[in-house]
Amino acid sequence: MEFEFCTPTRVIFGRGSEGRVGEIVSSYGYRRVLFVYGGGSVKKSGLYDRVCESLASNGISFSELSGVKPNPVLSLAKRGMALARETGAELILAVGGGSVIDTAKEIAIGALDGGEHWDFALGKRTPERALPVGVVLTISAAGSEMSSSAVLTNEEDGSKRGYNTPLHRPLFAICNPELTFTVDKYQTASGIVDILMHTLERYFAPVPDTEITDAIALALCREVVKAGRIAYENPQNYEARASLMWASSLSHNDLTGAGRFFAGTCHRLEHEMSAKYDVAHGAGLAVVFPAFAKYVYRLAPERFARFAREVFAVTLADDLVAAEQGIEILSSYFRSIGMPLTFGELGIPDPDILDMARRCSRDKTISLPSYIKIGYDEMLDIYRLML
Amino acid sequence: MEFEFCTPTRVIFGRGSEGRVGEIVSSYGYRRVLFVYGGGSVKKSGLYDRVCESLASNGISFSELSGVKPNPVLSLAKRGMALARETGAELILAVGGGSVIDTAKEIAIGALDGGEHWDFALGKRTPERALPVGVVLTISAAGSEMSSSAVLTNEEDGSKRGYNTPLHRPLFAICNPELTFTVDKYQTASGIVDILMHTLERYFAPVPDTEITDAIALALCREVVKAGRIAYENPQNYEARASLMWASSLSHNDLTGAGRFFAGTCHRLEHEMSAKYDVAHGAGLAVVFPAFAKYVYRLAPERFARFAREVFAVTLADDLVAAEQGIEILSSYFRSIGMPLTFGELGIPDPDILDMARRCSRDKTISLPSYIKIGYDEMLDIYRLML
Repeated sequence: MEFEFCTPTRVIFGRGSEGRVGEIVSSYGYRRVLFVYGGGSVKKSGLYDRVCESLASNGISFSELSGVKPNPVLSLAKRGMALARETGAELILAVGGGSVIDTAKEIAIGALDGGEHWDFALGKRTPERALPVGVVLTISAAGSEMSSSAVLTNEEDGSKRGYNTPLHRPLFAICNPELTFTVDKYQTASGIVDILMHTLERYFAPVPDTEITDAIALALCREVVKAGRIAYENPQNYEARASLMWASSLSHNDLTGAGRFFAGTCHRLEHEMSAKYDVAHGAGLAVVFPAFAKYVYRLAPERFARFAREVFAVTLADDLVAAEQGIEILSSYFRSIGMPLTFGELGIPDPDILDMARRCSRDKTISLPSYIKIGYDEMLDIYRLML
Repeated sequence: MEFEFCTPTRVIFGRGSEGRVGEIVSSYGYRRVLFVYGGGSVKKSGLYDRVCESLASNGISFSELSGVKPNPVLSLAKRGMALARETGAELILAVGGGSVIDTAKEIAIGALDGGEHWDFALGKRTPERALPVGVVLTISAAGSEMSSSAVLTNEEDGSKRGYNTPLHRPLFAICNPELTFTVDKYQTASGIVDILMHTLERYFAPVPDTEITDAIALALCREVVKAGRIAYENPQNYEARASLMWASSLSHNDLTGAGRFFAGTCHRLEHEMSAKYDVAHGAGLAVVFPAFAKYVYRLAPERFARFAREVFAVTLADDLVAAEQGIEILSSYFRSIGMPLTFGELGIPDPDILDMARRCSRDKTISLPSYIKIGYDEMLDIYRLML
């Protein structure tokens, strides 16, 4: 049990909190921001207007970068970096979900850097400074509002890469669960899977048990499953939406990683899928995790059994059987909230798994950490389980 | 579910981490610190020498304030403030447990303030700035290493008062569970009670259920009970000591307060006891909580029953009966780790409960928030249950 933990993001959580965005930006002394968002939904809901008004009434001027899409791309972030420099932005304000926040994080770093930005994703350089990022969160999923990571897709070679730095942690995150009332069922479900997976990537990392962290992780999963079901059926249930929103932050702010690490196995396998076929990240993870779990659970039956018992109240005494039942129940849960479990259901009837395994293993040069090393051959095996 | 959450303290957790104190202080650019500690144990264990060496080898000069005792006093903190000013300390380094950390926090504020320091505790003024505080933690109990609170006793009138400010959150906390191997059984047990109570003061605050927060709170309690038993029996068990140490931070950094508040009922009742009779805070809380719980559980039977079921695996279906059994099991647990359950067992055979209730209610002018208002009469009733 050894770790560092530092999650300084200030969370302002509750109904109507987005109305305070101008006041909060202003409280830090910033007068000029770059306002980053996606498009349609923020305008349709009136959130765009409310944010503009709050900024203006607090004397904050802003320029805008819109058009961020799911699986956000490097080229748009680069446009944002240029715009931030030109306009002298002092803070990058992300109004949206993970894609918008990740774009804002990269802009915040790139705006102060003259070099090739993709170097950071490739691990060739480490960023040393960044503008502050503020968030108004509209989707409970990625946990980017408190996390130290950001992921972009480089359209030039189709690669999707993320990296971690403390600079990525936002200065503040305004979290109003009401803003997620209009998130549709598919996006809500994708978010639920994403939240669960941020905790499970750490819970199933191949390190010894970490009692406090494990107990918190499983409690979070149990509540996300419960709240997810309610929010899926009743999108305007404040308590369920609040549980999902707070869980999205806690699942990726490293609380569930204390003494552990983010294995990222399922995320890496999925990144190749969403980079190549542009599927929703959470939906892709719903396909990946059961296949991954079936592939490795025999190597850590106690751990999978504990997951089954504490999250799904499985009472079977035998670890292997309990583990299997846990994976089955989770798969059924995914299905019950409209998530796919196979490539076909994900809308990829004829996936090029050879290419994805090749890319994921960086041409067979790397393997991912799990209870066994997941190299090219194992990746292929796991992708085959998703057919 | 509305709250603000901001816990920026950087936690450096693990074996040998105290050896990095000089490097960490230096990484922030500080060159001159005030080193605050208690006395005997830090010197006997060699920790004092290791900290001095780490500071010196990183070119950090320091002056010292020693002699902090349990239930720390205002007069010593004032001496520290003067010393910090005289020596131009840039950071206050607390090496110890809650008493040392709380003293350091008050010094950090008072060193930059010219006015009457007790005004802050009395709520007459709000502190606006503070020197940074660094911590090397030696006791798992108070959670002061990540909390926004500090408590001192004013010897002039015998009052014990705390207050909250974001300025109280330490800059960093170095947490090596090995440093707690030598904490004796009584202090270990007092710490266990203190940790549990920081979570329970929030869990039993009279507000609606907060699913994520409640689940985390109960998971923490369950693990603290388990790890507490192990650490009590086997003081050198690293995993158990690590669980207690990390739980002490998480129980008071506001994670278990998201959407709730720190009711403080038991703390206020206990503060009068430790201020008047100088008992260990945690041991005092072990006497207070069962009495408090018996006094109020009928007003929130579901909540007490959930505590019983999730922390102690009580299976009784009736909420009232399950609640009662939970309180009984917790009391037995306290007894099993050598904690008192009555004034007599706490070493106060003839407590002046009239005076304590009078002080706690500020001469019958205030009441504490719980499922009913706890005013002078109710305080007396609860104190009577401890006889």
